[in-house]
Amino acid sequence: MLKDFSQIKEQLSAMTKTPRLGVIVAQDEHTMEAVARAATEGLIEPVLYGRRELIEPIWERFAPEKALPVVVEEEDEQHCVSDALADVRSGHLDCIMKGKLETAVLMKAVVNKDTGIRKSNALSMLAAVQSPYYHKVFCVTDIGLMMYPDLQQKKAILENAVHLFRALGVEQPKVAVLAAVEKVNPKMPETVDAALLKEMNEKGEIQDCIVEGPISYDLCMDPEAAAIKGYSSPVAGDPDILVVPNIVAGNILIKSLTCTGNAKTCGAICGAQVPVVISSRSSPAEDKYMSIVLAAITGSRNL
Amino acid sequence: MLKDFSQIKEQLSAMTKTPRLGVIVAQDEHTMEAVARAATEGLIEPVLYGRRELIEPIWERFAPEKALPVVVEEEDEQHCVSDALADVRSGHLDCIMKGKLETAVLMKAVVNKDTGIRKSNALSMLAAVQSPYYHKVFCVTDIGLMMYPDLQQKKAILENAVHLFRALGVEQPKVAVLAAVEKVNPKMPETVDAALLKEMNEKGEIQDCIVEGPISYDLCMDPEAAAIKGYSSPVAGDPDILVVPNIVAGNILIKSLTCTGNAKTCGAICGAQVPVVISSRSSPAEDKYMSIVLAAITGSRNL
Repeated sequence: MLKDFSQIKEQLSAMTKTPRLGVIVAQDEHTMEAVARAATEGLIEPVLYGRRELIEPIWERFAPEKALPVVVEEEDEQHCVSDALADVRSGHLDCIMKGKLETAVLMKAVVNKDTGIRKSNALSMLAAVQSPYYHKVFCVTDIGLMMYPDLQQKKAILENAVHLFRALGVEQPKVAVLAAVEKVNPKMPETVDAALLKEMNEKGEIQDCIVEGPISYDLCMDPEAAAIKGYSSPVAGDPDILVVPNIVAGNILIKSLTCTGNAKTCGAICGAQVPVVISSRSSPAEDKYMSIVLAAITGSRNL
Repeated sequence: MLKDFSQIKEQLSAMTKTPRLGVIVAQDEHTMEAVARAATEGLIEPVLYGRRELIEPIWERFAPEKALPVVVEEEDEQHCVSDALADVRSGHLDCIMKGKLETAVLMKAVVNKDTGIRKSNALSMLAAVQSPYYHKVFCVTDIGLMMYPDLQQKKAILENAVHLFRALGVEQPKVAVLAAVEKVNPKMPETVDAALLKEMNEKGEIQDCIVEGPISYDLCMDPEAAAIKGYSSPVAGDPDILVVPNIVAGNILIKSLTCTGNAKTCGAICGAQVPVVISSRSSPAEDKYMSIVLAAITGSRNL
């Protein structure tokens, strides 16, 4: 069990080899602030792709006592992307992070069949959550890449999250496939998919986790609500992973937790050869920093 | 602006005429506990439909100092329902509440074209929220009646909520139609509907409110996020009403706010001749009590 984010950071501090983070188009203040902090603390070793003359003053501002890391000098963003992805393929980088470029540009390169770094059947964006109202770190997925995933895509989303939690040391994560109800209703396709995912887990087609679904958020997160309604499941009241049916539900849930739930989050794209951090401009600096920590530790253990 | 739930209760306390609440199949402890409290405080005048011999001992337990209210003696639940709905139609009741019967049984009777109490184009379930992380009472709708509402149904859901907020004294409620993004994307039907609802509002087809959409939860609820992303709207950071695209998103959001957001909620079904309270068994007693308060005040002003 991961009690809170500090335990993830402790795992990273305890690593014998410092993970390498590739920062793509690194001349971006918001990104570099978080990168410099993690590097100054000795948690990661950055490799900066971009224009040295723009990167250097930003670095000096945020990490005045630490020498500038390796800079792979490239004029334009396309070369920054291709250099970094080549370094992922050669095993030189453990995780990558988006700097001053559009997410779409980076993702297009990541999923390219010839020159990309795809690994799983589907890439998914996962947000880990530390909430004052829940007893451990949990995650919500997918919150941003697949709009309305079908069953096979949901399976990949689920497996990506299980893979990440296992890299964090949670041997057998508990997975809740969310719906509005617990009963399968053919008029509610997400309940049908949820039941099928549970069945795949029971048959051994989805491994290394316990899947429950369909299950509503309250029976899932509140053991008292589950008890009152006579609902019994090892996942009820104790999930690690929440799989949402679509991008709207995922986006609303994660933003509800942060904007009106006092939760902290961090996140990464899973399913590529290494974790990819693409924090939003509006994310707090702390979220960006924790996303680097999450990507570094899970990327290093991404065997 | 409604700062918190206590202001709703103050409005009810200040009424000159005490609203009548019909309790259908009243021999239910969970329901009666909340009803007895509101009645003891003089906020409502209950009319209890059901079996006196079962009702009386429950009443005496929860309201020992207050005389048993009017009991309309009926053996079976169907007669309780039809008596109460007839009393709504005759103007005798200001709001009704489900006791010991299935929600589906009550709702089927409510929507019956001949003997029901329908008023709007669509009934919707609204949850009002008091959150420690938001500056005023807001609501989420629809959270339980329509699975995947189409545009006209969303319009009705929105108008039901506007009607309720106006009954609470919010003259021009601000409405956010939620999606995962702010840009209309034909591949995301909820963004198209949201833009159409905004257009209807601008053309005067939806009145007495300001509609914004599509808008994501964070730009909607967090003025800082809106500022960072350069998003400007009178609704950003200040909505009263959140319209969700479907039952799954609504259910997940409201349960996230209560289970992992420390929020209090209350709610009612809107769009009938009077508000209908159908609190879940697993709702806290406080939620049931506040739902009665909400239904009583808005039902009495339901002109």
